[in-house]
Amino acid sequence: MIFKELIERFVSGDRAACAKLISLIEEDSPQAVEILGSVYSKVGQAHRIGITGPPGAGKSTLVEKLTTLIRKEDRSVAIVAVDPTSPFSGGAILGDRVRMSSLFCDPNVFIRSMATRGSLGGLAFKTRAVCDLLDAFGNDVILIETVGVGQAELDVAKAAQTTLVVLVPESGDGIQAMKAGLMEIGDIFVVNKSDREGADRLAVEIETMLEMHPQNNSWRPRVFKTSAEKGEGIESLFVGIVEHRLFLEKHHFFRDFQKENIRLDITQMVEQRLNESFWNDPRMNRFLEEFVDKAASGEISPYAAACKLWEKWQQRRKK
Amino acid sequence: MIFKELIERFVSGDRAACAKLISLIEEDSPQAVEILGSVYSKVGQAHRIGITGPPGAGKSTLVEKLTTLIRKEDRSVAIVAVDPTSPFSGGAILGDRVRMSSLFCDPNVFIRSMATRGSLGGLAFKTRAVCDLLDAFGNDVILIETVGVGQAELDVAKAAQTTLVVLVPESGDGIQAMKAGLMEIGDIFVVNKSDREGADRLAVEIETMLEMHPQNNSWRPRVFKTSAEKGEGIESLFVGIVEHRLFLEKHHFFRDFQKENIRLDITQMVEQRLNESFWNDPRMNRFLEEFVDKAASGEISPYAAACKLWEKWQQRRKK
Repeated sequence: MIFKELIERFVSGDRAACAKLISLIEEDSPQAVEILGSVYSKVGQAHRIGITGPPGAGKSTLVEKLTTLIRKEDRSVAIVAVDPTSPFSGGAILGDRVRMSSLFCDPNVFIRSMATRGSLGGLAFKTRAVCDLLDAFGNDVILIETVGVGQAELDVAKAAQTTLVVLVPESGDGIQAMKAGLMEIGDIFVVNKSDREGADRLAVEIETMLEMHPQNNSWRPRVFKTSAEKGEGIESLFVGIVEHRLFLEKHHFFRDFQKENIRLDITQMVEQRLNESFWNDPRMNRFLEEFVDKAASGEISPYAAACKLWEKWQQRRKK
Repeated sequence: MIFKELIERFVSGDRAACAKLISLIEEDSPQAVEILGSVYSKVGQAHRIGITGPPGAGKSTLVEKLTTLIRKEDRSVAIVAVDPTSPFSGGAILGDRVRMSSLFCDPNVFIRSMATRGSLGGLAFKTRAVCDLLDAFGNDVILIETVGVGQAELDVAKAAQTTLVVLVPESGDGIQAMKAGLMEIGDIFVVNKSDREGADRLAVEIETMLEMHPQNNSWRPRVFKTSAEKGEGIESLFVGIVEHRLFLEKHHFFRDFQKENIRLDITQMVEQRLNESFWNDPRMNRFLEEFVDKAASGEISPYAAACKLWEKWQQRRKK
């Protein structure tokens, strides 16, 4: 009853209801699947833009400036910041968000942090789910900002149709970006803090690397220089983002993107149920602990233990 | 037959056999489980040290210098570098490894890169498995170096008994480390490039953050300043590493560590089999594609589709 009311309030555009539904998804509420199912017909309108890059590259400031620009065109924006939840980090991340205080008061800007703890596939799945919800809520643009530059962040980046890789002129930053696997995921590269020395060189470095490795679809990644702090280069960057969107639409990549997301979602949900059905069986947990003890005492290897646990499961299924 | 010979050569200390067996694990060879099972009784002697931190912090150089120091004590070292495999990155990473050329010729130093592609749980699992193998091979110390600072890297860090977090004096690097979730995983913090301005301030920042958040076990994380490039501070750091090892031994944490790894290994292997048993059924794949199409055309939500796919599986099991 309360749940049905929440959905109704969500559909009527109530931000508090939207926030509440996001929380239910984040908390793995059993109703999450129902929520998403009931609003899914409205999904597919928003442009999802990922902003990734090493810590300290100025991503939050860039997100703020892009949001201000998009709001000038009277389009609504949701910001999803994928942050680690850490007893150490609470304050720092809030610090970043406080800088966005100018946006906090705008009813057409929705800001949300998400935690990176828990299962990794789970985070990418939840990010997609939250984006679906924000999309169904009627947001025109969704900005997905990640904090780190690891594999999980690359997976989260896949939730975006357009991915911005933000770098700063530091010694060897281009090389570091390559090493972190950022070169392949960028549709647009941003050399931020471009008033620093080495900005031109970094831009050339990126261009060179891109030329050496043509992308498999026909989009040619572009490089922009910005100074988010000073608000320089943001408009040109935004034109580049819009061009990428038009390119995707022209080649029907939006549909491919959606199908791939659906496939990932279904696979993830089914595998989660499979694992739950296994571990919800108390006997399997008991067997696990027995085998852990045996392996720790050297009686059996963990690998043989896994085989035996699997056999137990198979036997149980046959009964 | 050839496989049995490989194991025999491994046990007799043949490095080529060790490298080949690692490859089989990396490639998800069906023999991987057998390999690990057959050598598992020899696992548990090596000290596993993780080296993590943002790109550009000088981790590779630090690893090189630590290795040289450990070799002076006539102990054998294996280096596992967890790198992303990227069409862009091949050269760059090789570049880093080439700097270790002084170590390449030492028969008691084993250097191995591992790819971060593929499933994330899978990477942490494989890192543990490769460390088990290198441990069984008789290495005294295993250094596990990660490239990025994301969630996957944090998971990989768990494969180590002692974790070094390497930072450099850059504006706000302490804060960035907090955001990336590095503060909780460090047993030892290294302020590298300590000849740069701001090194003392960063060290104080880290000390302050650590004081604010006491660890749950009784180890008090320590902070060291080094200049890996110049070889400064490496010996003090190494003393700190040995102290951490003695602490772990004294409190029997090695055994806890091993049990936790065993539990993770068994869980991972069983869940992988579960998922395989699902997707090896061609009907499930056919149903998946049907549901993806239906969801893409708006006929059904992906969430409802997952439920239906699960029902199909349940029905099939009952027959």
